[in-house]
Amino acid sequence: MKKPFILVTNDDGITAPGILFLSQIAKGFGEVAVIAPDKPQSGSGHAITIHTTLRIQPSHYHNATIEYAVNGTPVDCVKLAVNKLLPQKPDLILSGVNHGSNSSINVIYSGTMSAAIEGYLEGIPSIGFSLCNYSIEADFTPSEKYIKQIIEWVLNQQNEIICLNVNIPDVPPDAIKGIKICRQAKGNWVEEFEERFDPYDRPYYWMTGKFTNFEPDAEDTDEWALAHDYISVVPIQTDLTCYSTISKMKNHFKS
Amino acid sequence: MKKPFILVTNDDGITAPGILFLSQIAKGFGEVAVIAPDKPQSGSGHAITIHTTLRIQPSHYHNATIEYAVNGTPVDCVKLAVNKLLPQKPDLILSGVNHGSNSSINVIYSGTMSAAIEGYLEGIPSIGFSLCNYSIEADFTPSEKYIKQIIEWVLNQQNEIICLNVNIPDVPPDAIKGIKICRQAKGNWVEEFEERFDPYDRPYYWMTGKFTNFEPDAEDTDEWALAHDYISVVPIQTDLTCYSTISKMKNHFKS
Repeated sequence: MKKPFILVTNDDGITAPGILFLSQIAKGFGEVAVIAPDKPQSGSGHAITIHTTLRIQPSHYHNATIEYAVNGTPVDCVKLAVNKLLPQKPDLILSGVNHGSNSSINVIYSGTMSAAIEGYLEGIPSIGFSLCNYSIEADFTPSEKYIKQIIEWVLNQQNEIICLNVNIPDVPPDAIKGIKICRQAKGNWVEEFEERFDPYDRPYYWMTGKFTNFEPDAEDTDEWALAHDYISVVPIQTDLTCYSTISKMKNHFKS
Repeated sequence: MKKPFILVTNDDGITAPGILFLSQIAKGFGEVAVIAPDKPQSGSGHAITIHTTLRIQPSHYHNATIEYAVNGTPVDCVKLAVNKLLPQKPDLILSGVNHGSNSSINVIYSGTMSAAIEGYLEGIPSIGFSLCNYSIEADFTPSEKYIKQIIEWVLNQQNEIICLNVNIPDVPPDAIKGIKICRQAKGNWVEEFEERFDPYDRPYYWMTGKFTNFEPDAEDTDEWALAHDYISVVPIQTDLTCYSTISKMKNHFKS
């Protein structure tokens, strides 16, 4: 079998330890291109750059076949890679490993997952990986064998474009209980804004927040899996339609 | 019945004609606060500002009870409004009217819809409105009576938090055929990047793209409704789980 061509990206920036860990794993599977933001882009969601231009800078940090830092969002990186910079369509897109969780509703705020979702929308199997530890010095190694298992499974799906949201609990190697296929837990963030005043006495705000899991006892959710030391894998789709509300509204708005 | 307290926001910036049109309609329903980006934020998706601080600037453009321009994304505006700036939780959030379509997969790139989705996540009924015309001089008036009907319906739902993606065809008043409740059409954007060179001979890129509707004949989709001069209304939910893939993966990854 021909070796796959793999694009690696992330949202923490091209020099983050998490993406270096992932690009080195990817090299074990095939030829690797790394095209990632030139600076941290956490919380960039599915943002794209349309009001200004994109720049690319050659990089050698990953020792990859093709490697560029981009002054845009993770979604920009995927679009620019697939439609301009790469000589062929990638067989797989890997995003991450993110420094911090992207489970539950975090999926829609996450630049890491938005890059994977963009790949999926362009017809490319894509996986976002995140470790539940924000530290720059987090240890990614406990997850290595599981990351390889998941990549291998996705590469073997010939007839379906798969998109996965993979989250890794922050526990020692021996404590990981295995992989659990889950649904996205229902939850939300409630923000608190810390007001401070600049030297000219003008207010400014720092956003901080607390996540609430609305269904902590639901054993089929990603939050439950992570809380019980499993790696959570949520397969992703992009239809936001609420079908139950369609029926209800059709009774009122007849056309 | 107590008059509702309504937050109006958008992604084109607080002085865009579309949001002024919407804030004036909102005043017919209740007390209005306008908290919106201080500049255009199209394509900002569900981005939030966590690496830097937010600033607010009082504004009087809408003659609203409470009015601020924020140096952040549409989602930042909703979070800051609900959790810091407003004296009470809004009864309704209106986002738009966007200058340009947010039908089909545009929903995930759209700052307009991300603001509405953020409101929904915070437990507030929310509607995003978009007109299929990018021009700053677009005529919003043909949709006015339909916008009012939709707002009225959402305000009357006591037991359910509703989120709607409403798109308006760019046609003369008499040509609008009515409101059609739809699902999100399957489609994607394929980008083309125009490469140019700056005066120092360094390349830069402009993103342009073409939307493809994968199911132009599906009469239950928003794209079909708009192509046939209906206002499309897609009810929104935020669970991205692909349930059919869960079953498939569970056979392979047993835990």
